[in-house]
Amino acid sequence: MIERNEGFSNLAAGYLFPEVAKRRREYQAKHPDEKIISLGIGNTTEPLTPHITKAMADYVRALGTVKGYSGYGDEQGNTELRAKIAEVLYPGMASPDEVFISDGAKCDIARIQVLFGRKAKIAVQDPAYPVYVDGSVVIGAAGSSSKNGYKGVTYLPCTAENNFFPDFSKVKPGSLIYFCSPNNPTGATATKAQLKKLVSFANKNGCIIIFDAAYYAFIRDENLPKTIYEIPGARKCAIEINSFSKLAGFTGVRLGWSVVPSDLKFADGTPVKQDWNRVLTTLFHGASNIAQAGGLAALDKEGQKETKALVDYYLENAALMKKALTGKNFSDAGVKVYYTGDSPYLWVYFPKWKSWDIFDKILNDCNVVTTPGSGFGPAGESYLRFSSFGHRKDVQEACKRLSKLVL
Amino acid sequence: MIERNEGFSNLAAGYLFPEVAKRRREYQAKHPDEKIISLGIGNTTEPLTPHITKAMADYVRALGTVKGYSGYGDEQGNTELRAKIAEVLYPGMASPDEVFISDGAKCDIARIQVLFGRKAKIAVQDPAYPVYVDGSVVIGAAGSSSKNGYKGVTYLPCTAENNFFPDFSKVKPGSLIYFCSPNNPTGATATKAQLKKLVSFANKNGCIIIFDAAYYAFIRDENLPKTIYEIPGARKCAIEINSFSKLAGFTGVRLGWSVVPSDLKFADGTPVKQDWNRVLTTLFHGASNIAQAGGLAALDKEGQKETKALVDYYLENAALMKKALTGKNFSDAGVKVYYTGDSPYLWVYFPKWKSWDIFDKILNDCNVVTTPGSGFGPAGESYLRFSSFGHRKDVQEACKRLSKLVL
Repeated sequence: MIERNEGFSNLAAGYLFPEVAKRRREYQAKHPDEKIISLGIGNTTEPLTPHITKAMADYVRALGTVKGYSGYGDEQGNTELRAKIAEVLYPGMASPDEVFISDGAKCDIARIQVLFGRKAKIAVQDPAYPVYVDGSVVIGAAGSSSKNGYKGVTYLPCTAENNFFPDFSKVKPGSLIYFCSPNNPTGATATKAQLKKLVSFANKNGCIIIFDAAYYAFIRDENLPKTIYEIPGARKCAIEINSFSKLAGFTGVRLGWSVVPSDLKFADGTPVKQDWNRVLTTLFHGASNIAQAGGLAALDKEGQKETKALVDYYLENAALMKKALTGKNFSDAGVKVYYTGDSPYLWVYFPKWKSWDIFDKILNDCNVVTTPGSGFGPAGESYLRFSSFGHRKDVQEACKRLSKLVL
Repeated sequence: MIERNEGFSNLAAGYLFPEVAKRRREYQAKHPDEKIISLGIGNTTEPLTPHITKAMADYVRALGTVKGYSGYGDEQGNTELRAKIAEVLYPGMASPDEVFISDGAKCDIARIQVLFGRKAKIAVQDPAYPVYVDGSVVIGAAGSSSKNGYKGVTYLPCTAENNFFPDFSKVKPGSLIYFCSPNNPTGATATKAQLKKLVSFANKNGCIIIFDAAYYAFIRDENLPKTIYEIPGARKCAIEINSFSKLAGFTGVRLGWSVVPSDLKFADGTPVKQDWNRVLTTLFHGASNIAQAGGLAALDKEGQKETKALVDYYLENAALMKKALTGKNFSDAGVKVYYTGDSPYLWVYFPKWKSWDIFDKILNDCNVVTTPGSGFGPAGESYLRFSSFGHRKDVQEACKRLSKLVL
């Protein structure tokens, strides 16, 4: 008989979102007539925009012709798309050969851990997107779990007290530091000064930053950095992971990218890019060519205009939610809403509640699904994450219900 | 500084196909006017068929509407597609919940190794598709390489003497056995009697078979098994990996699937399916929904008719190539062609040559690219793999040139 990979037995039970889905399902089964609205998972709800849709439909039709057909593309991605991403998003910061196309940020986050293997030391923000840690557990880098989390992981609390930007002093030299900005779940978007601190710490301590920028398109404050490469020195210590999911509504279409600068090296001098290229050519075979055609359209002039409007729609939802959640019923109960307008997520503190209790109460009393902050890590306890992904009328209805909530 | 994952330093340099591409490029640069024809890599060349193209184009257009839009799908794949695969390809053999949709067989082969981790013992056919071993090296299961291959890998020679079906007696109990049928590169398609031997060995010795059936659509002999689950007992010891790439021309579209039966267990009794589900939900996020719409169309009545005709086209190419390669110039030189008509690949033995030498000679003399058998493992030495993926007129021209080759 074959032994189970110990990484899986180490993996703590219950991925957050399945538990949310289960509670929703159970509630609906007991109350079949009630219309539940989800402000829970970060799943896009609005249609693909016309220019991007047309580009992909045209591409599919071309695949049905001798002239337009193409089989395997380059595993690292369509050359034109790599160049377009470098040109539009990283002018003067990264070159096309440093951009690698993928089937999404989550998949890249999982794959990138293979680069470092089980000996890697891990540091994550707390709260954080669960995949950083779960992926590290599976690869064997996180060790076994205890009451305080995994032994091999350094947790960096991000709280209201530190303005959701962590203290790095406990991070071991030579660590992989996962950092997400705009942050999922806190919505906090790091300033240039903050990212300078991060980059400086990483360079001084031989750390590599995995910078998850999947929500960069939501940044509206022009002073906030949209990529870590706006910070001098970042090319020596940071990998950026990014996505078309939230930018263009490609959650189901599946398209993302990573940036691995040539300046980033392992201890033995091997460029990280060299091994990353090997991961993508040996263990992956490129994103769908149809999705890549859509990605290319999303980055041209018309596509950029459309995707900005698409993201604006969700930002307007978020503004409505902020208004509802700062109403008298909430503020009287000491509820605090953390939201700066540069993220799809509102991070909301309920001082008198545990996260799952207030989750259940809002599900029961308002028929609104949220995400319990404690599911993202211990520092998320007593918080809920509200997601702005939803149809406007549903968000309006949810806000109406929330404004009547008795806390 | 961060250490490199030792899996990558263990990885022997030079992936086969990049070296083929390099020699082709260098030859073309020296002879810019010559028209090189590739019978090398297994990349599909013919357009997507009309019914499947229409299904995907319609799906894309629907994504541009409120009613037709969908974001994240289930990570394990569209329920309807899982059911359709089970119904069409595994009637009475596997249920929909045992079918998992992916972005292609290669990606699944890479991911599946995470299930077993670095302690797994590995057995592979020799010759074999390089990803089985390379993936095992990266995960740490194959150990370091020596002249005779990787220390942690048991190589199972498949030669003309054993009819390209290996002897399993050297496989260690509790091994992962990678087995590909129809085989890449030998083209050999295992009979029911052969697969019974394999399944019986695996069940008796606590092994798990990773059965790569990506070329099953090329099987025309009705007595040959198209899936390992035609063999009693296989549900207790085998995972099947499969793909729409060769079936429907989806090499660039990216769509595949795996079957992990509920009966398959780890030593501690944990169902393998449980951990596989965790891999797909935590480290992957589903294949592109557009590709999945195409997969669904490929398996309905009209799609099946179209894909059969598509595969027939390549089989006709193979028949033309077999004819050319059994011509007097080849047979006089002792060349032997192994090809039964159930695979896209012809496996051709050149007794007086090393693989890379005959590769270079055919590139030079005929301007035809092939794949050196030795790149698939030591037992492939002196063989070339000829691929039937090509436009008919190119294949005809290549055959004409080959018939004039002086050996």
